[in-house]
Amino acid sequence: MAELHQKIVGYDLWYLKLPVTSRRDHGIGSVAGTCEVVVLRLTSEDGTEGFGEASPWSVFTGTPEATYAALDRYLRPLVIGARVGDRAAIMQQAMHAVAHCTEAKASLETALIDLAGRISGVPVWSLLGGRCRDAIPLSCSIANPDFSQDIELLARLREDGVRIVKLKTGFKDHAFDIMRLEHIAQNFPEFSVRVDYNQGLEIEEAPNRVRDVAGFKPDFIEQPVRSHHYGMMAKLRQMFDVPLLADESVFGPEDMERAAREGICDGVSVKIMKSGGLTRGQTVARIAAAHGLTSYGGDMFEAGLAHLAGTHMIAATPEITLGCEFYQASYFLREDILEDPFQISKGQVVVPTGPGLGGRPDISKLNRYAVATAVAA
Amino acid sequence: MAELHQKIVGYDLWYLKLPVTSRRDHGIGSVAGTCEVVVLRLTSEDGTEGFGEASPWSVFTGTPEATYAALDRYLRPLVIGARVGDRAAIMQQAMHAVAHCTEAKASLETALIDLAGRISGVPVWSLLGGRCRDAIPLSCSIANPDFSQDIELLARLREDGVRIVKLKTGFKDHAFDIMRLEHIAQNFPEFSVRVDYNQGLEIEEAPNRVRDVAGFKPDFIEQPVRSHHYGMMAKLRQMFDVPLLADESVFGPEDMERAAREGICDGVSVKIMKSGGLTRGQTVARIAAAHGLTSYGGDMFEAGLAHLAGTHMIAATPEITLGCEFYQASYFLREDILEDPFQISKGQVVVPTGPGLGGRPDISKLNRYAVATAVAA
Repeated sequence: MAELHQKIVGYDLWYLKLPVTSRRDHGIGSVAGTCEVVVLRLTSEDGTEGFGEASPWSVFTGTPEATYAALDRYLRPLVIGARVGDRAAIMQQAMHAVAHCTEAKASLETALIDLAGRISGVPVWSLLGGRCRDAIPLSCSIANPDFSQDIELLARLREDGVRIVKLKTGFKDHAFDIMRLEHIAQNFPEFSVRVDYNQGLEIEEAPNRVRDVAGFKPDFIEQPVRSHHYGMMAKLRQMFDVPLLADESVFGPEDMERAAREGICDGVSVKIMKSGGLTRGQTVARIAAAHGLTSYGGDMFEAGLAHLAGTHMIAATPEITLGCEFYQASYFLREDILEDPFQISKGQVVVPTGPGLGGRPDISKLNRYAVATAVAA
Repeated sequence: MAELHQKIVGYDLWYLKLPVTSRRDHGIGSVAGTCEVVVLRLTSEDGTEGFGEASPWSVFTGTPEATYAALDRYLRPLVIGARVGDRAAIMQQAMHAVAHCTEAKASLETALIDLAGRISGVPVWSLLGGRCRDAIPLSCSIANPDFSQDIELLARLREDGVRIVKLKTGFKDHAFDIMRLEHIAQNFPEFSVRVDYNQGLEIEEAPNRVRDVAGFKPDFIEQPVRSHHYGMMAKLRQMFDVPLLADESVFGPEDMERAAREGICDGVSVKIMKSGGLTRGQTVARIAAAHGLTSYGGDMFEAGLAHLAGTHMIAATPEITLGCEFYQASYFLREDILEDPFQISKGQVVVPTGPGLGGRPDISKLNRYAVATAVAA
């Protein structure tokens, strides 16, 4: 226990641009070329290291520049010299030390728990309430504007044992969405299909398009309209019997409480990059469950380090029942940053059992992909 | 009219650190040393220039780093090559091109209207609906942890004809707030007093402290608790007959609609840096008025260029009835950035009548205070 009284003495940052293998189009924007993330390393007095990843998306949670500045300038002073064990106090301060920047706060909490876990010799999930599952069903997103490439991806996923896909819709025309739903239903019938608009629909077109899509009986339809369009979300939820999920409409517990109260959704995408940390992510899932709503573990365009954080969070949160989406390290990045690959087996993410996150980034990869760093010599 | 079909060909940025004369403590944080703002200059094909200022505050709206990146990387592509007259289209795209960064969006709209106004030879207020007032009562904030310095400021304000002050409370102990309220009531009875907690109170202490302060019958009491504490805001509003105003709880029209519906306030602080533009600021004031709520023109830690934008917005918005707070250029910055001083006369901000904003920054000052720039050679 005394070891958790150690102070945090090292605080290093890498701003990475990671090459990706394909283009991803979502309702609110696209990612192509590179995926930009920031990695934080905390070091305690005995030399133990804890890592966290911030995975911003400029059109959704914030920009990588804002993330890097939040970590480098605004959060650093709260952490240097603080005690490893004082995570709740540090995160309470972090919440208000800088506006927005939820990804930066998520990376900070990840690194704090990783560090505490490594010092204590226990996995991150044991510090978040203990484990409720040792594997998490994986959903992979179908989001390529060139559907022929996604057909190849679907074949690869089938081979790999993945049985859930999420079709990203609303970034091209409606006929393209219907064509892809039909193709998947006919040629890949073993897949459960989810549909995600990422806010891509205008209010005037949403009811008709969502009706057509609901006819395919997907597992759920996610965030058809803009995050603030709570009224239309509530209406769409009532119109169809397919569950309606909220993503951009719900960042943290404050949004979740309101979303549940206003009846805008049947469930929610829980993402640590939105909630501003693993603990707040758990709270979102628990508020949802208290209202009889379901949830799954979503993510941003992440590398494997953030996947690990999300995996531990879901492993310790029984309320998150609809699996996860941690596919990018394996199916999107040209090369992940972890020393050992992020583990997926038979379409399930494997919950690590080692100390801390159970995995760490390869420093040589961080240095290779860094476009900016703040690393002590 | 054809002149408004010109394209925007120049897009230059200055990230400034402006020295300030004193320390300002608010419930959510402090500003001391320098005030960081970003200035945008747009240039049209005929060489006309339009300016806008983004005035972020890291604990409130966002960081200056996020603002600069938003303008430099994410908003620039929407603007270069766009037509000067297409402001509504540009702002519609800007709203979704980058998450948060409302200050960056406000500076963009300011520069677009300034440019259109200069090209058309009309003031900004004429492009926002026409003028409803030619002067705006000024409120100056009392926020120095060293109250003796604020007593000197109060004497100077009295001399200058200013008759409204806002006492910033909740950053030290309750006795300090009560002492200052008593001192002002006794020694400066000619002043109308407003009270602003800037979220400084915990939920458990808010009712008692606000009750004590309400006993002084201030014009209003603003934002005693955290922005998300809508429930406590609604309760405090019912407890006292002094009007309760929302600031951090209401950024844009989406928040205002909800705040009015949930009955959390009697009025709102309208700030272009929160709403993400002048037009959206007008909308906030109009939603408030439609609900029978009042509003005043607030600001962030701004230089005179942002003050000018706010002045034109208020000049064209009859619904904003409680004056403004554009004091920083005159009473806080060591030196403002405008070529000609921001005009205050007998405690009233003077609404400019020249083309565009009716004032422009001194480029030599921008260059002197810049810590980063993106200026075409």
